[in-house]
Amino acid sequence: MEKWKTVSISKEIDLKIFKAQWIKRENPQSLLQSEFIVLNSPNWVNVIPITSDDKVVMIKQYRHGTDEITLEVPGGLVDDGEDPADASVRECVEETGYFSSERPIYLGVNRPNPAFLNNYCFSFLWRDVEKRFNPKFDSNEEIEVVLFDLDEVYNKIERGEINHSMVLNAFFFLKLFLK
Amino acid sequence: MEKWKTVSISKEIDLKIFKAQWIKRENPQSLLQSEFIVLNSPNWVNVIPITSDDKVVMIKQYRHGTDEITLEVPGGLVDDGEDPADASVRECVEETGYFSSERPIYLGVNRPNPAFLNNYCFSFLWRDVEKRFNPKFDSNEEIEVVLFDLDEVYNKIERGEINHSMVLNAFFFLKLFLK
Repeated sequence: MEKWKTVSISKEIDLKIFKAQWIKRENPQSLLQSEFIVLNSPNWVNVIPITSDDKVVMIKQYRHGTDEITLEVPGGLVDDGEDPADASVRECVEETGYFSSERPIYLGVNRPNPAFLNNYCFSFLWRDVEKRFNPKFDSNEEIEVVLFDLDEVYNKIERGEINHSMVLNAFFFLKLFLK
Repeated sequence: MEKWKTVSISKEIDLKIFKAQWIKRENPQSLLQSEFIVLNSPNWVNVIPITSDDKVVMIKQYRHGTDEITLEVPGGLVDDGEDPADASVRECVEETGYFSSERPIYLGVNRPNPAFLNNYCFSFLWRDVEKRFNPKFDSNEEIEVVLFDLDEVYNKIERGEINHSMVLNAFFFLKLFLK
């Protein structure tokens, strides 16, 4: 199977957290050209912070896409040139105030949506975190920190109380890592 | 924690597989209003088809978002008013030609991205499938069907050879279902 050939990018629209690009590509079989819309996005990161007494540090926040309050782990955009592990540390500290002198452990990476997004989402485990700082929200963020046992987190996943796909991916990777 | 109040939708851009909407919302604490971009998308579905001799029916296809060839399970958009289980049957037959007289079993549902997408992705298991039809691709689809033992699929996930987040979610739900 062959990849398509990129012919040109004809238009670009700024959607704040990514750019929509109209990309013309050529089918390697038929040589016909068609236009596809791709969201050109920074990479994402998330992290499962766990305290020394095995509590998972999670956050509740209002989300504008689903117009719902979700239960998640810390995460966000990887800055340009930033190491994903450093981004996971930064996001965890900003959103929860929890920190550890350990380095985060890489769990895995996913493609959020190969059909229309060009980015990666990296997942990490951060052990022995403790509350060290006050969370630093931007003006449109309001975040509540909640701690759960890991077993309870998996129960919540089975009950559908945690349903953010990137968060589910992180806990799937953790399950494979811990097995 | 409170949800924000939706004030208005001021602009909409058609991006083919979803619409980008500029939504003005009011912060329930500060009462300040801000504008957020939400992708208004149909729901998605995917399905893990398994033959009576325990082979998982997967597909390889070129994906325009990542500009890569991916290994996935069948899936796609749920049509307006369509039952997600019926959509999973339709997508599996169209993409692979595999069919079963059993009904698909619901595994779980995720929110692909609560931050900017308003839709759900439903995952199903479809047992005892067999090759019954010729796959029916649209003009921009080229799909190769490949069969793997379930253990090999989980090995491929650990090696990063399967990395589509929605596909990972389906196999995570399957792991929880089979445990």
